[in-house]
Amino acid sequence: MTPSASPPPIAEVLSIGDELLAGDTINTNAAFLGARARAVGIEVRSVVVLRDRLDEIVAATRAAVARSAVVLVSGGLGPTTDDLTTEAIARAAGCALVRDAAAVARLTDKFQRFGRPMPEANLKQADRPDLGEWLPNPIGSAEGVVVEIDGALVFVMPGVPREMKMMMLEQVEPRLRARHGLQPLRRRMYRTLGMGESALAERLEPVIARARTRSPGLAAVFLHYRASTPEVFVVLEALHDAAGNAATAEELAGLDAELAEALAPALYGIGEADLATRIVAAATRAGRRIAFAESCTAGLASALLSSVPGASLCLDGGVVAYDNRIKTALLGVDPALIAEHGAVSEPVARAMAEGGRRSLGSDLCVAITGIAGPGGGTPEKPVGVVHFAISDGATTSHLRLQLRGDRGTLQRSAALWAHKLLWDRLHAAGLAGLESLEPVVTE
Amino acid sequence: MTPSASPPPIAEVLSIGDELLAGDTINTNAAFLGARARAVGIEVRSVVVLRDRLDEIVAATRAAVARSAVVLVSGGLGPTTDDLTTEAIARAAGCALVRDAAAVARLTDKFQRFGRPMPEANLKQADRPDLGEWLPNPIGSAEGVVVEIDGALVFVMPGVPREMKMMMLEQVEPRLRARHGLQPLRRRMYRTLGMGESALAERLEPVIARARTRSPGLAAVFLHYRASTPEVFVVLEALHDAAGNAATAEELAGLDAELAEALAPALYGIGEADLATRIVAAATRAGRRIAFAESCTAGLASALLSSVPGASLCLDGGVVAYDNRIKTALLGVDPALIAEHGAVSEPVARAMAEGGRRSLGSDLCVAITGIAGPGGGTPEKPVGVVHFAISDGATTSHLRLQLRGDRGTLQRSAALWAHKLLWDRLHAAGLAGLESLEPVVTE
Repeated sequence: MTPSASPPPIAEVLSIGDELLAGDTINTNAAFLGARARAVGIEVRSVVVLRDRLDEIVAATRAAVARSAVVLVSGGLGPTTDDLTTEAIARAAGCALVRDAAAVARLTDKFQRFGRPMPEANLKQADRPDLGEWLPNPIGSAEGVVVEIDGALVFVMPGVPREMKMMMLEQVEPRLRARHGLQPLRRRMYRTLGMGESALAERLEPVIARARTRSPGLAAVFLHYRASTPEVFVVLEALHDAAGNAATAEELAGLDAELAEALAPALYGIGEADLATRIVAAATRAGRRIAFAESCTAGLASALLSSVPGASLCLDGGVVAYDNRIKTALLGVDPALIAEHGAVSEPVARAMAEGGRRSLGSDLCVAITGIAGPGGGTPEKPVGVVHFAISDGATTSHLRLQLRGDRGTLQRSAALWAHKLLWDRLHAAGLAGLESLEPVVTE
Repeated sequence: MTPSASPPPIAEVLSIGDELLAGDTINTNAAFLGARARAVGIEVRSVVVLRDRLDEIVAATRAAVARSAVVLVSGGLGPTTDDLTTEAIARAAGCALVRDAAAVARLTDKFQRFGRPMPEANLKQADRPDLGEWLPNPIGSAEGVVVEIDGALVFVMPGVPREMKMMMLEQVEPRLRARHGLQPLRRRMYRTLGMGESALAERLEPVIARARTRSPGLAAVFLHYRASTPEVFVVLEALHDAAGNAATAEELAGLDAELAEALAPALYGIGEADLATRIVAAATRAGRRIAFAESCTAGLASALLSSVPGASLCLDGGVVAYDNRIKTALLGVDPALIAEHGAVSEPVARAMAEGGRRSLGSDLCVAITGIAGPGGGTPEKPVGVVHFAISDGATTSHLRLQLRGDRGTLQRSAALWAHKLLWDRLHAAGLAGLESLEPVVTE
């Protein structure tokens, strides 16, 4: 592929809303916009998070258009008096704010379709900067706006994450591609669960160092690690060097075999698809049905698998046996086993997996029993000890881990480790592979 | 309480690191710093996320000290060549960067204690701006720095979340309190589930408008809405007006009765404690044990309740009856009922709640059955239809909702609605109230 003629444009993100500054809400929108901008081929130079204050939004917008060719704004398009973004953008553009009769009609229609009367307050969502154009929002009341200010394109999107995401993908990205003639940035992601960042780095970096000697494109590859406990994602990006060289898709994919060897047994996939998606795909293809017997995770492993559309094709369900009584009543765990070894023990984990498989009639059952804390730990069984077992009727295997983190982190880590055990079992049976499950080039 | 003599200082947060801009890492540090600053009594006016570029960090720091009395910087204190924060802060302060022999000694000691040789690269972590003072970091190699620039206090902390958190709590906050003689910002939060933001605003704003006429402090109250589907939090903050007036804790609490009337029946609590925490507290106090029978949420309602420390004091567990076979096998739902009405129906929801209560032997069981999509909808039962039932043995009540959103949003909304039904049932029995569950003043 030919490198682009001029350096790609720089973007910045403005996130608007008091809730983002008070620490009430974590700014996940900025991460999404950053990732999508990169996928389109635009680097984000900064994110600025602002209060719902008219003068501050105007000043930040003016500063942003002076520095960056693209400004991605989200938040403050709601119907309440503290939603000021549209008015601020009009001021920054030096134009009037106009009520758009066609937008009023669309808004009225939407509320009719939602089956609710339109509150008077929502009428302000039909106001746009005179110089701006609407960006449709089929799933919410707040339409977006794009307006050119001093040569920069300013896109204004709602703060509601799913509305913002749809607008970014369907309205903003096509306009950015068209305007800047961009190629997507090629990247390849290796997904791991079971090793820390520094252990991965020790195994990987010699492989990457060798690869860099092979071509100027590979020499320019950018390697980074993205930790999301208990997972670590290794990302290779085909950046351009000063002479315009960048690794080709074939060069990146050519590293798979060496990297898979270096990252085993933590590696479970290459590409964007997550662990749950890969399990649902593999189990469905193989006709295997899955059940969970959960104590300390209380349904989270099952719920995370069900987040994948089509999970019903392989997920039977499970038993949340939080109280020991339920372990006996619904999973058939012998109370004597619990009395002898404690609920957090290898024998009980095995009995839960086997009992869960029997009572749900599933092909595979994973059991999880551990101490999520903050209380309940002992010197022998400290907070973070988790016993897992997985049974397919023929074989039951067991794993004991000492996980780290607060209660929420421990529960999430344990649920994802249960998924990894499922994937490992499917992989060992030749039913799940590392394949990408989506195109290498992010569109 | 007496208002402070001068308005409280304004802070801003600078988060430094390429990974925050590429979308790989969600900026949770900024949310923590924002929440802590508010708790100390300092409002955060903005967060700026920057790349690891020297000139950009210098420029952002200079801009920040010109606007704000307090600047909270995190990230870029590591040992690698792309960690430039300390150098940038020295430039912004107009002073030299000096290698501190005592800091070199502390660093060498730390590595000895960690049992690892100190890489040469780490020596740069002993460099500080000549005008700055160290902030100890007992759990990591990167010490922090505090330096005064043009009258503003600039605190520089590591980007590793647990190191940053400890440094903020133990080093930064005591210095902020000492310097500014601060009182915590008084705020009062009203937590609702069941009404949209604009419907809430229509009911609330007349009440607040009346309250503003009562005193200069109440007139200065700042009202905002924080939506977290399906919940909306209404927040009142006692900001200071130009004359230094701010609402007292008693004035804020004095609005409770009027606000509770305006927000019923969506209101479930006043204060920071979330719905799950309130259910666990109320059910535990009343000795009621809880079970879930979940289909479309697949364990999420149960898992969210278990995220509360001490949930085992009231949570028995549940059955994830994702497949219809499990609804019959473990919840005793008559297959004929499913055949006649479909799994997503009032009769099946009722049978699940009653069957779940019986098979788990719990006091209360909530059942959830719905269509999470994206497939599986029909004109009669579109995606987002969810039937809930709650049974206490004596009475089973039912609710049908048409929820909106993508699969993940629908599942989360349905799980939280199930919690709301639990709370409503406990509330109706006089077992759960709106009380704050924590001091009104955030510490």
